[in-house]
Amino acid sequence: MSTSAPEPTEVLSVDDLREAWDLLVSEERLSGFRALERTEAETFFLGLSSRDQSELLLELPQPERRSWLRLLAPDDAADVIQEAPREEWPHLLGLLDEPTRREVSALLAYAEDDAGGLMSPRYARTRPEMTIDEAIAYLRRQARERPESLYYAYVLDQEQRLLGVVSFRELFAAQPNQKVAEIMRTKLQTVHEDMDQEEVAKLFDRLHFVALPVVDESGVMKGIVTADDIVDVVREEATEDIQKIGGTEALDAPYLDIAFFAMIKKRGGWLMALFLGEMLTASAMGYYQAEIARAVVLALFVPLVISSGGNSGSQATTLVIRAMALGEVRLRDWWRVVRREFLAGLTLGVLLATIGMIRILVWESIFHTYGIHAGVIAITVGVALVGVVMWGTLMGSMLPFLLRRLNFDPASASAPFVATLVDVTGLVIYFTTAHFILRGTLL
Amino acid sequence: MSTSAPEPTEVLSVDDLREAWDLLVSEERLSGFRALERTEAETFFLGLSSRDQSELLLELPQPERRSWLRLLAPDDAADVIQEAPREEWPHLLGLLDEPTRREVSALLAYAEDDAGGLMSPRYARTRPEMTIDEAIAYLRRQARERPESLYYAYVLDQEQRLLGVVSFRELFAAQPNQKVAEIMRTKLQTVHEDMDQEEVAKLFDRLHFVALPVVDESGVMKGIVTADDIVDVVREEATEDIQKIGGTEALDAPYLDIAFFAMIKKRGGWLMALFLGEMLTASAMGYYQAEIARAVVLALFVPLVISSGGNSGSQATTLVIRAMALGEVRLRDWWRVVRREFLAGLTLGVLLATIGMIRILVWESIFHTYGIHAGVIAITVGVALVGVVMWGTLMGSMLPFLLRRLNFDPASASAPFVATLVDVTGLVIYFTTAHFILRGTLL
Repeated sequence: MSTSAPEPTEVLSVDDLREAWDLLVSEERLSGFRALERTEAETFFLGLSSRDQSELLLELPQPERRSWLRLLAPDDAADVIQEAPREEWPHLLGLLDEPTRREVSALLAYAEDDAGGLMSPRYARTRPEMTIDEAIAYLRRQARERPESLYYAYVLDQEQRLLGVVSFRELFAAQPNQKVAEIMRTKLQTVHEDMDQEEVAKLFDRLHFVALPVVDESGVMKGIVTADDIVDVVREEATEDIQKIGGTEALDAPYLDIAFFAMIKKRGGWLMALFLGEMLTASAMGYYQAEIARAVVLALFVPLVISSGGNSGSQATTLVIRAMALGEVRLRDWWRVVRREFLAGLTLGVLLATIGMIRILVWESIFHTYGIHAGVIAITVGVALVGVVMWGTLMGSMLPFLLRRLNFDPASASAPFVATLVDVTGLVIYFTTAHFILRGTLL
Repeated sequence: MSTSAPEPTEVLSVDDLREAWDLLVSEERLSGFRALERTEAETFFLGLSSRDQSELLLELPQPERRSWLRLLAPDDAADVIQEAPREEWPHLLGLLDEPTRREVSALLAYAEDDAGGLMSPRYARTRPEMTIDEAIAYLRRQARERPESLYYAYVLDQEQRLLGVVSFRELFAAQPNQKVAEIMRTKLQTVHEDMDQEEVAKLFDRLHFVALPVVDESGVMKGIVTADDIVDVVREEATEDIQKIGGTEALDAPYLDIAFFAMIKKRGGWLMALFLGEMLTASAMGYYQAEIARAVVLALFVPLVISSGGNSGSQATTLVIRAMALGEVRLRDWWRVVRREFLAGLTLGVLLATIGMIRILVWESIFHTYGIHAGVIAITVGVALVGVVMWGTLMGSMLPFLLRRLNFDPASASAPFVATLVDVTGLVIYFTTAHFILRGTLL
């Protein structure tokens, strides 16, 4: 869909531009951006997402691109290049200075979701045999040359293997003539360069460090990952999970930015799959057609009964999916979850059954809706509700375990998926219950 | 539910203990913890959640508690005390040294969800008139005394008002005899002490800083918030949203830790509300009872039709809720979302209608399931599907806007809530369609 742009773009302040940004088409973005004073424009540019930075960069005339790309730290520059079409990569890499280009090329070689794809190759380094005063002087020289991040100083040997780490606090607090080796911490928490970003995020969550060092198999230091990048990761992973729980594929783009047909594809796929599954309800209902014809009253409670199973299943599946994503529940906890959800399903089922039966009996006594068989109908609906809610709760809580066991993403056990599954089986539970309880009276 | 503990606790290594932790009851946790060597125990303690730290601390004999609590940074100590029962607060505060106690008491006074509740009052400070060499020497002295975080040095005037900020990189890179005032940045991004933590997280997401200064109305610096604390916030807010989307209240505790009846309360409330809403389906079905009795075949497609509306509504509501939480979609974007979802609902509805109609005609030609009226039944189901899916999509996408407009949490427009709403209205759409199309043939 094309985006309309009601605001005029000539006189936009930096705040106006930020506000209006999402509504502007690319030419308007460009002219608004170029109208900004240079330092304001720089701050503005640094605040954009990698996607927007990339688009804006490619809109700019060739000669202007270099200084904007070089404004970025190597890991951010790598993100911007990653967002650009493949054929632009050589050109964009060519805009960088030689050492940065090597760093950025190395970063682009890592998969985006690995620790290597998150890390910055610029960090403060020192040697174990230096004195504190020497180390501080050395760091001052490094700061003038290039490192961008000064949270910890990493102590490396000649082969660039990581020996230890000193926080700036510790460095500053030590006696000037102590050796770095005396004060460095050697029990290190490191991140392997191939570690998945979700695992890296869990480490940050647990350890509360501002930065973690990234190393390869032989302990050679490759870079650092900082907590500010992890904020993005956590947000992104949560977005993917939420979208899957809602029954779509992860959009991988902001809702208003994704192209219409790309969105339809991500939603339509699941929706059709669910629809095909749900068709079994028509078959199940067809199987009980004779019962329905004899006692139409049975049909009245079909949506109520099966949706109760779907709702309790949605609750159970989202709780378990999220607990798994947070590492609170692991595969081997499945039996504890079964016991818990069995009891939860029973309690919730009895609760809903009680309300449902009261509703039927009250309506009968006021409106005489259900005739002389109101009592047995109430019992049928009540028993079916207990069964369906217990079944929904157990299915909803076990499905994420099953998916994880088969190496699928547990978040695919979306609320609509569980609801559909429970709709079909819920019908069978309901009509089987009816068959046994109403035999001889209504059926 | 009480927790069973299959593992023996005497010979646990630190890794074993971490693994088994969730399965252990508090006495076992305590004995496992006390069996650790002191420095290992310290690392282990620092890696626990505030909740677990708090519980463990209160299990320890009184005299041992002090050194563990003092191991923590003031903001973490505040979190631990916040997790403890109110009556323990004075005792726990009493364990701290006098200056830290003042800091922690101040932190406890902030609401947990405000920037003030996240911040650390320990940061590096300097004065604008110092030379770089003086500033570095001054920071070295401060580091020995107390600041825990050295990412930026904050430049304050006599009244503790924030004038500017210098990164350590800039400080180290500057000429020794320059003044701090010459190199400090004065265009500052600050956080107000009352800012909601979700807003603070969005700032970090946008700006990629490792730390932001917290100030009050008059610009007096109160502390810093660091990105590692924001990782927690983002995770926590996503968990709340996911649980709400799944149709429960936010649990506010790990799934396996929350007491059984507390969980039932959080799930049962919504489940009963949804059940009461869903009862309207029984009334709606009752209203069309005569039609169902005349054409039982209509009842067969009820679950299929209404669940398609529920599923498309779940998709739309989760996409919009998440886009709102990320700030991608704002209240005033509602009309763009309406246009988008109108088209999406139409496309998806036509897609499902086509599949549904083909299914009915194929079944008829193979099994002769639906008799001579199969054609009109297929048209009825098809038209109803387009209507129900469009309606579900629009309801699902607009409900979060409505809730936000009324100052409720948009995430309350959960997948089950939308599904329930659409079930009732979906029935009306379906039977109205049937009424018009089947009049004169089946009805």
